[in-house]
Amino acid sequence: MAEPRDVLILTERDLRELVHLDHAAINVVEKAFAALASGKVVMPPILSMAIPEAHGEVDVKTAFIPGFEGFAIKVSPGFFDNPKLGLPSLNGLMILFSARTGLVEALLMDNGYLTDIRTAAAGAVAAKHLAPQTVDTAAVFGTGVQARLQMKAAHLVRPFRKLIVWGRDRAKTEACAADLAAELGIEVVAEPDGEKAVAESQLVVTTTPAREPILKAEWLHPGLHITAMGSDSPEKNEIEPEALARADLYVADRASQCETLGELRTAIEAGLWGAGQPVELGDIVAGKVEGRMSEDAITMCDLTGTGAQDTAIATFALGVAKAGGKGSKVAL
Amino acid sequence: MAEPRDVLILTERDLRELVHLDHAAINVVEKAFAALASGKVVMPPILSMAIPEAHGEVDVKTAFIPGFEGFAIKVSPGFFDNPKLGLPSLNGLMILFSARTGLVEALLMDNGYLTDIRTAAAGAVAAKHLAPQTVDTAAVFGTGVQARLQMKAAHLVRPFRKLIVWGRDRAKTEACAADLAAELGIEVVAEPDGEKAVAESQLVVTTTPAREPILKAEWLHPGLHITAMGSDSPEKNEIEPEALARADLYVADRASQCETLGELRTAIEAGLWGAGQPVELGDIVAGKVEGRMSEDAITMCDLTGTGAQDTAIATFALGVAKAGGKGSKVAL
Repeated sequence: MAEPRDVLILTERDLRELVHLDHAAINVVEKAFAALASGKVVMPPILSMAIPEAHGEVDVKTAFIPGFEGFAIKVSPGFFDNPKLGLPSLNGLMILFSARTGLVEALLMDNGYLTDIRTAAAGAVAAKHLAPQTVDTAAVFGTGVQARLQMKAAHLVRPFRKLIVWGRDRAKTEACAADLAAELGIEVVAEPDGEKAVAESQLVVTTTPAREPILKAEWLHPGLHITAMGSDSPEKNEIEPEALARADLYVADRASQCETLGELRTAIEAGLWGAGQPVELGDIVAGKVEGRMSEDAITMCDLTGTGAQDTAIATFALGVAKAGGKGSKVAL
Repeated sequence: MAEPRDVLILTERDLRELVHLDHAAINVVEKAFAALASGKVVMPPILSMAIPEAHGEVDVKTAFIPGFEGFAIKVSPGFFDNPKLGLPSLNGLMILFSARTGLVEALLMDNGYLTDIRTAAAGAVAAKHLAPQTVDTAAVFGTGVQARLQMKAAHLVRPFRKLIVWGRDRAKTEACAADLAAELGIEVVAEPDGEKAVAESQLVVTTTPAREPILKAEWLHPGLHITAMGSDSPEKNEIEPEALARADLYVADRASQCETLGELRTAIEAGLWGAGQPVELGDIVAGKVEGRMSEDAITMCDLTGTGAQDTAIATFALGVAKAGGKGSKVAL
């Protein structure tokens, strides 16, 4: 028997009280990206298991980041028949281990909440380092949770005056626009024409599970930054492959992941990617590579989601929980 | 926010009270091997991450087995500087998810206890299907936890009269022999000569972390079964590669794992494996392939440890805990 010790358990309710989509969360995720560029982060390929009988899948991500006291292992099940049972499709948890001893420190039973936050925070990091300094109008493609969170995050680093929401479903698009107008206190319009949405904007974030491009290469214009965060599997594709070749700068969150899970995959398959190893977001955050070269450049960032972000947000959440005396301890 | 629900937390103490190395545990692991042969088990490659700064590593294993209500994700950290800090090197936990909804059902904070049990149970499954029907004398190589558990498990399926313990360290060998004599109530001798230990035995289990062979091919004799369970990484090797070619039947727990982590690896590297795809233990358990062909045959089983065993033992543990009203519930 090991020596008795405590493990901290934080529920989704605890974590929603403790961790918010704010500058502190963005900073810790930015720090994780900078660490990725150091070459000293250990981030194994994602473990992925399909459970066809239940129309389910489960992904496991992890990363060790030097300088962070813990490392997280995140388990994300997605069971797509759950709504028929009155249950959410997505849930999951993170386990935080001491990076010094490998002992379990905390169980973050977040049902995906921390993933939502760290994903939106990565969008803010991309916008901070790649969007034009002045963004008057932003657009979001998609009307779900990430559409809302990405725009909230982007607005923290580029306080745009106007926001355009594009979606296929008119009612959902208008609901999302209304929510974001209330959240951000700015003008938000629902726009069924994607081309118009892009034409007006300096910053566009795509957040859909599209399997065929919803954003065309010919829509790209000088002074535009696009963050594509919807694709995270080999079937998804939001951006027309030609757009990657047409952009002045394409940036991957992690090149090895974007090649198989991101927008880069279809560009490679179409023979439209000739630039070799792409720049990674961490290289730009760390100052190793120049980001946006001018206000007129066209830039693009491909976010597939990294274990480094999970370790960052989990470590951050534990720190906040300890400081606030939150959570329940279980004696092992 | 998801609907409130409970998750069951079982500590190492709970699990040691609930789950024992007995026929019930062996049966559930045997069932997992049979399922592996069905081709319907989903078992992704092991996720493995090294943390060089802390002389640590962490492995994640999982498997979905049709017919089991849950699937486990097991996280096994090994931090080899821990003993200097007064902490155990190995610990870890299993998370049990519903195979129907992907929701977390239980957290099994076992610190590796369930792994110990399912590993020894696999040894018993191998002995049951591959050892000669009559085993008068058995030998174990190694003097650690698995040496003790493997012999306890093997004795349940082949109640041998005499046991020989081989180890490099005389004091540890004698301590292990004394423990096993008390546990099994039979004659147990410490033997520093490996050749003698094999010569006298019909069943040998190797349980060491050896990186150079400790069991030589020339020691093999008719009517012998060897289970090698010590190797689980690309640096380890317990059995001289020639022995695999010399055996009448070599059996892998999982061919794809044994090729890179087991004894099969060195045999392939030495050009001594020409038999193509090896038989798997599950094929024999399921009756698809004949096991031992005669009492005089020489057989060998290579155990690297499978996620299917983890799912089996975790599901079993949860069932026993629910029946006994054990564990503490945490409301999420």
